[in-house]
Amino acid sequence: MANLNPLIRPLVHELHAYVPGEQPKIKGLIKLNTNENPYPPSPKVLRALKAAVDGRLRLYPNPTAEKLRGKLAKLHGCKPENILVGNGSDEVLALATRAFVEPSSTSKIPSPQSVVQYFTPSYSLYPVLAEIHGTAKNGVALNADFTLPTVAELARGKKWIFNAALTFVTTPNAPGGRGYKTSELEKMCRAQKGVVVLDEAYVDFANENAAKLALKFSHVLVARTFSKAYSLCFQRVGYFIGHAELIAALDKIRDSYNVNGLGQIAAEATLDDLKYYRANFKQIIATRESLARTLTKLGFRVLPSQTNFVLARPPLFPAREWLQKLRQEKILVRWFSATEVSDYLRITIGTPAEAAALVKAVRKIAR
Amino acid sequence: MANLNPLIRPLVHELHAYVPGEQPKIKGLIKLNTNENPYPPSPKVLRALKAAVDGRLRLYPNPTAEKLRGKLAKLHGCKPENILVGNGSDEVLALATRAFVEPSSTSKIPSPQSVVQYFTPSYSLYPVLAEIHGTAKNGVALNADFTLPTVAELARGKKWIFNAALTFVTTPNAPGGRGYKTSELEKMCRAQKGVVVLDEAYVDFANENAAKLALKFSHVLVARTFSKAYSLCFQRVGYFIGHAELIAALDKIRDSYNVNGLGQIAAEATLDDLKYYRANFKQIIATRESLARTLTKLGFRVLPSQTNFVLARPPLFPAREWLQKLRQEKILVRWFSATEVSDYLRITIGTPAEAAALVKAVRKIAR
Repeated sequence: MANLNPLIRPLVHELHAYVPGEQPKIKGLIKLNTNENPYPPSPKVLRALKAAVDGRLRLYPNPTAEKLRGKLAKLHGCKPENILVGNGSDEVLALATRAFVEPSSTSKIPSPQSVVQYFTPSYSLYPVLAEIHGTAKNGVALNADFTLPTVAELARGKKWIFNAALTFVTTPNAPGGRGYKTSELEKMCRAQKGVVVLDEAYVDFANENAAKLALKFSHVLVARTFSKAYSLCFQRVGYFIGHAELIAALDKIRDSYNVNGLGQIAAEATLDDLKYYRANFKQIIATRESLARTLTKLGFRVLPSQTNFVLARPPLFPAREWLQKLRQEKILVRWFSATEVSDYLRITIGTPAEAAALVKAVRKIAR
Repeated sequence: MANLNPLIRPLVHELHAYVPGEQPKIKGLIKLNTNENPYPPSPKVLRALKAAVDGRLRLYPNPTAEKLRGKLAKLHGCKPENILVGNGSDEVLALATRAFVEPSSTSKIPSPQSVVQYFTPSYSLYPVLAEIHGTAKNGVALNADFTLPTVAELARGKKWIFNAALTFVTTPNAPGGRGYKTSELEKMCRAQKGVVVLDEAYVDFANENAAKLALKFSHVLVARTFSKAYSLCFQRVGYFIGHAELIAALDKIRDSYNVNGLGQIAAEATLDDLKYYRANFKQIIATRESLARTLTKLGFRVLPSQTNFVLARPPLFPAREWLQKLRQEKILVRWFSATEVSDYLRITIGTPAEAAALVKAVRKIAR
């Protein structure tokens, strides 16, 4: 650690940046590694975007995403002041860390107001956000089968902090894939004193969603994204639903023009054509269930999923070897080094043809 | 301050959010209030964008804006590791605050490592960034005519902090409009111990730029944006040029996918057609000089400008009244309440026709 650049904060020197999934440049790879939707955006969305590519690009976008927030409020049965739109849901998660959690002095034992809490495994961004903001992290293990511990179990486990400033819950879980019941989530929210973010990035592929909890409790935010279910990763649009006071606090600290104009237009057009997307969800869920059955027959232990991916423990070779072997067959999946999941592969649900190609490659490797 | 929501950090409760210029919804207004370029993006940029509106939107954008950084590196004669791209230059300015400045404990006198420093008047976002991050602000007055104080003058004035963690210099100045010589900026950079950001948002309308200082000094960053000169406000693309160590530090704390995909494509296509934009700069500069002469004849005190706006002290009525009167004539300009500039209007340079409409309205009001 000698010769550290003194212009840079010590905290930043210590950071290990979040590593996003590979965006390969090789053509012909089947990309099942970053949970993107295999289907393009609705033709209506593409038309709306093409029509908007004109002289208006010289102007600033609407700084409060007013029209989009209006449509989202209508969708969720709330008011525009219950909605905050961000540059992808990653941004709204980062904003929550900065608005609700005090950076902790390194010299003291962290107080609950300086704690970012989350389950392990879940979205690997949360600890990174805590580190960037200079707060304490409290990662608490899910049950061994990635189900949610009950409040009593959390209390017995002693590690959970019921008054942590901010708690992130990925629901359905990633990378596990399990869906959680709104009733379970509600019990956890009731027991929690700080802000709870229910990160529903994958919820459109699940049996139920917990959006109503964000409107019922003044300390609960629900995060959503247009990236995965709505095939808009490229344009970076995510949002929070929640109590107007929390939303107003987040609004104060965001960049004025944080949501690009074409992203706003794409998201608005998406909300006008939900039928198209709902048909995609159905197809992806059907492909997921069929792939899960096939992989199970081939010796994989496939966890139940309510997302657009499955977490599966492969037979014969370590998961990391499978990652390499599948890559040789031009199929890209994801492997995480964290011990709870290092025996597993996370496989995004593609088209039926992509699923078939995966199964073919698996059979070849297993032979 | 009773009944503050305890879920929200005290710091956030105290914030006054940055107020962006009005984006009016009334049709027919001539918009000379937010320094947008009056000319649309190049036809080649619009074509490149339309061609990119397809199934790729379902995929994540390149997380490091690799192609764009390569083109920018070529333009500036540096390496891609000297470039950081952000969601507009506002984002890169905010990242600098978070990477280089320690939040200050409210209980102590701030140390230089917790100081964000800037000149007044300049971009009103800087103090907002300091407040959001919880650091001390040090706003130091420019000379009365908005020229840059020399290092000796700054030292004599006693208020300037030569080892402030981060110093922002808007060059050319906004809202004043004055350009600063690279030789003056270099002297200031040499005298400064912390990070210096030369914020060149308007530099394409100036006589010279200071990009070389970012490559010469390891503590200097130059901020640029595609918004104003390159007619791309809508798509949010800005960047830093600087030493690889500072860039790497900023890179660690940004969101992985901070630059939307169509924004990257638009910026890349822009760099392939600089000729188009250079012709625009020439036209805007010609309109600016002509408008300045006319307004001067009409009794305005127009400050010399090297930007796409002029700061002008109107005759007859207070500036704020002019703002209202011009609005009645369907012309939107900007007025700032800060005392150094509250006698002035900031007028964006539009097309020659827009400038003529402004002059016509001014004559009518003055009659």
